[in-house]
Amino acid sequence: MDINSDMGEGFGAWDMGNDALLLDYITSTNIACGWHAGDPARMKKLVELATAKKVHIGAHPGLPDLVGFGRREMAISEQDAYNYVLYQAGALQAFVNAAGKTLHHVKPHGALYNQAAKDIKLARGIARAVRDLGGDIILYGLAGSYLIDAAKELNVPVWQEVFADRKYTKEGFLVPRTQAGAVISDESEALEQVMSMSKDGKVVAIDGSEIKIQADTLCIHGDNPHAVEFAKKIKAALS
Amino acid sequence: MDINSDMGEGFGAWDMGNDALLLDYITSTNIACGWHAGDPARMKKLVELATAKKVHIGAHPGLPDLVGFGRREMAISEQDAYNYVLYQAGALQAFVNAAGKTLHHVKPHGALYNQAAKDIKLARGIARAVRDLGGDIILYGLAGSYLIDAAKELNVPVWQEVFADRKYTKEGFLVPRTQAGAVISDESEALEQVMSMSKDGKVVAIDGSEIKIQADTLCIHGDNPHAVEFAKKIKAALS
Amino acid sequence: MDINSDMGEGFGAWDMGNDALLLDYITSTNIACGWHAGDPARMKKLVELATAKKVHIGAHPGLPDLVGFGRREMAISEQDAYNYVLYQAGALQAFVNAAGKTLHHVKPHGALYNQAAKDIKLARGIARAVRDLGGDIILYGLAGSYLIDAAKELNVPVWQEVFADRKYTKEGFLVPRTQAGAVISDESEALEQVMSMSKDGKVVAIDGSEIKIQADTLCIHGDNPHAVEFAKKIKAALS
Amino acid sequence: MDINSDMGEGFGAWDMGNDALLLDYITSTNIACGWHAGDPARMKKLVELATAKKVHIGAHPGLPDLVGFGRREMAISEQDAYNYVLYQAGALQAFVNAAGKTLHHVKPHGALYNQAAKDIKLARGIARAVRDLGGDIILYGLAGSYLIDAAKELNVPVWQEVFADRKYTKEGFLVPRTQAGAVISDESEALEQVMSMSKDGKVVAIDGSEIKIQADTLCIHGDNPHAVEFAKKIKAALS
Repeated sequence: MDINSDMGEGFGAWDMGNDALLLDYITSTNIACGWHAGDPARMKKLVELATAKKVHIGAHPGLPDLVGFGRREMAISEQDAYNYVLYQAGALQAFVNAAGKTLHHVKPHGALYNQAAKDIKLARGIARAVRDLGGDIILYGLAGSYLIDAAKELNVPVWQEVFADRKYTKEGFLVPRTQAGAVISDESEALEQVMSMSKDGKVVAIDGSEIKIQADTLCIHGDNPHAVEFAKKIKAALS
Repeated sequence: MDINSDMGEGFGAWDMGNDALLLDYITSTNIACGWHAGDPARMKKLVELATAKKVHIGAHPGLPDLVGFGRREMAISEQDAYNYVLYQAGALQAFVNAAGKTLHHVKPHGALYNQAAKDIKLARGIARAVRDLGGDIILYGLAGSYLIDAAKELNVPVWQEVFADRKYTKEGFLVPRTQAGAVISDESEALEQVMSMSKDGKVVAIDGSEIKIQADTLCIHGDNPHAVEFAKKIKAALS
Repeated sequence: MDINSDMGEGFGAWDMGNDALLLDYITSTNIACGWHAGDPARMKKLVELATAKKVHIGAHPGLPDLVGFGRREMAISEQDAYNYVLYQAGALQAFVNAAGKTLHHVKPHGALYNQAAKDIKLARGIARAVRDLGGDIILYGLAGSYLIDAAKELNVPVWQEVFADRKYTKEGFLVPRTQAGAVISDESEALEQVMSMSKDGKVVAIDGSEIKIQADTLCIHGDNPHAVEFAKKIKAALS
Repeated sequence: MDINSDMGEGFGAWDMGNDALLLDYITSTNIACGWHAGDPARMKKLVELATAKKVHIGAHPGLPDLVGFGRREMAISEQDAYNYVLYQAGALQAFVNAAGKTLHHVKPHGALYNQAAKDIKLARGIARAVRDLGGDIILYGLAGSYLIDAAKELNVPVWQEVFADRKYTKEGFLVPRTQAGAVISDESEALEQVMSMSKDGKVVAIDGSEIKIQADTLCIHGDNPHAVEFAKKIKAALS
């Protein structure tokens, strides 16, 4: 199973996360493209770091909401979703190509990811953009969501994404963070969930029922202070 | 001789210029990439219009100064110039590739163009970015300026740009707009200057002396109300 | 009845509307504050024009969505609404005070206006900001909406806004533009609606029923090509 | 002597500095206004913190260059300087007034400060804006620079600012950071310089000569890890 992490999410004078350290324990990086976070200098630097570490390089496009870090839902159209992803992923692709590599995947960020997971139109806009980037680029989307359906409709390669530290509903969606018990803070429980998803394709939902889940790639959050330690353990457990 | 025009220079709810009309009389379009003007929706539309009209499609990257339309000098570094051009041209390239075409050229906008014409470091930053976009993309730069020198140093294809309606100094630079006589408002004088540059590689400078100039591409300004009429005449005169 | 119009809605190099002409036929101007449109140079100019024409000067704050002209709903919090209105109206207030005048009113723009009309929390955030600007500044809000309720709760002066060219539902809200018959294109019908609202406090809803409406101020859209002519007629009819 | 520090210089999801800790050891805070850094939520929070600590509250307006943190020179006009300062300081003033306080001063940030120190036109634009904010607001500017001259011309109250950890040229300007010996890294030497400026109105320049300097306010940089410790020592030494 692939392990991915969002990176390059500072902006100008402001840094965020432990990108350089985390790169040793992941297999895919999702690089912010300047709209919710990230800037051309960071994009260049992260592409170079990821190239040196032989980590898959992906674009991490977001909504045009820098002050809100792309986390606030916006009423954009399907065509906006297409245009915004093509623009941002295209910009990153130029840095990736300049480093002699090819863009491996696209993972939408924050509200764009969450809105598209629930809205087939936005999901299609994003999947069309990934298709039109050329080169069989993979769309990373929430396992079981409309992002997966849209990619399959359009014959876009897709990897289903799962989370180590988030509880699932019995329908297979993430329990919203505003709800009690949404986040798994116990590290061994999180590791157990990862192993269950990875080996058996199953996860125990918040109501105790067991649900099927396809786990192609696992998301690790780099802004967590324990992120590097946890990534080490996940990597060790999976191999 | 190629005839180019800057296009897609509206933003969001705001339009600018007569892009659709002018496309019939030019051979190259330079499309704004969202920083000084332009947005993803306009980039997509212009790429489609230009494709239909079989006009060469180029990127027109600018400084990060939307409220100033990229016309105010900024103290950016050589690396900034590289990063900014690669980001913006990469974003446009994705739309061009999605339309089944390839990016033909890059022409820096406004203050970025003018600063690089006089500053070899900025010129090199821009030329490196054009090289790293791959595919023998052509850099359009002010005839005789450092943009031309930098492109040649790096073996980047280059087209020297001339202006129909601007007077030249005896050193071959543009007379600043703040100086009397900088702009040629008489249309027949402008046409004569174009023919002289095109056929003889010469232009009469503001002091009356005759200077050599290499005229690979001619810039037509689309925000002028007479732009379409003038473009028609230029096209007729050159053919 | 007051007649208001949104103004200063260009940005940088881009203009919009016929602000200077329309100022002769209105009694209140709502000046964009730089987030959805507008910039400091336009704010200064409009304040000076409106001062010369003795028109009431108001702030027209919007969402932080320049490329979307503040027309797309965003999931902002009540505190965001407060902060965004206080920031933008405060900036305009400085230009108004510098011209020796006082800020007369605040009218939220676009999606901020529409979201707050339906969401009492956002409405309260906005009303608190208007209160905290000091000086008994008036909040202009959709007649009968939560913006009116929130202002009354907080003892903020409020003027109920009506529209000449929009049909109302039987509940007294605007028929969404996406629905057939939402816009009144016949000028005499629009004038008749204005007179009925102004004299009788009544309007005929889209289903034919008659509803009560308090009409303190009427909005004229300046981006319409016939806006100036229509404003003349409205002004004549009302006086 | 007043001790000031730049604060609120995060943006959205990104923090910077130890604002809360430093407030115990300074007498004036300069709050970023959203253009080079800062956002409405931070402006509100800092105004409340500074009010609780009885620290003078000032605006810290910058150039419209968020990605460059307002540190890159831009070719703006005198009128731009006026408009940009009035807009940003007006926005902050609304938060200050909402907290029941009055705006105490304005200190331009970064390149805007440095450009105006050397350019009387920009200095006048800034001083006019401070005057037009009303209420005898004080302009903080580099001691001996054009900012001081412009304020005096316009009868704007002015406090001359000095630096603890920067060497001066024999003309009384700061030695550029690019030059060796520009920064005083030895803490006791910095303290000595402060005491000499404060008590005797003198400072030893980099060439060993002694120059006169008027020290009304001292700038402490909060992004330095030792800033809080150093501020404590300065405060103790001065009292």
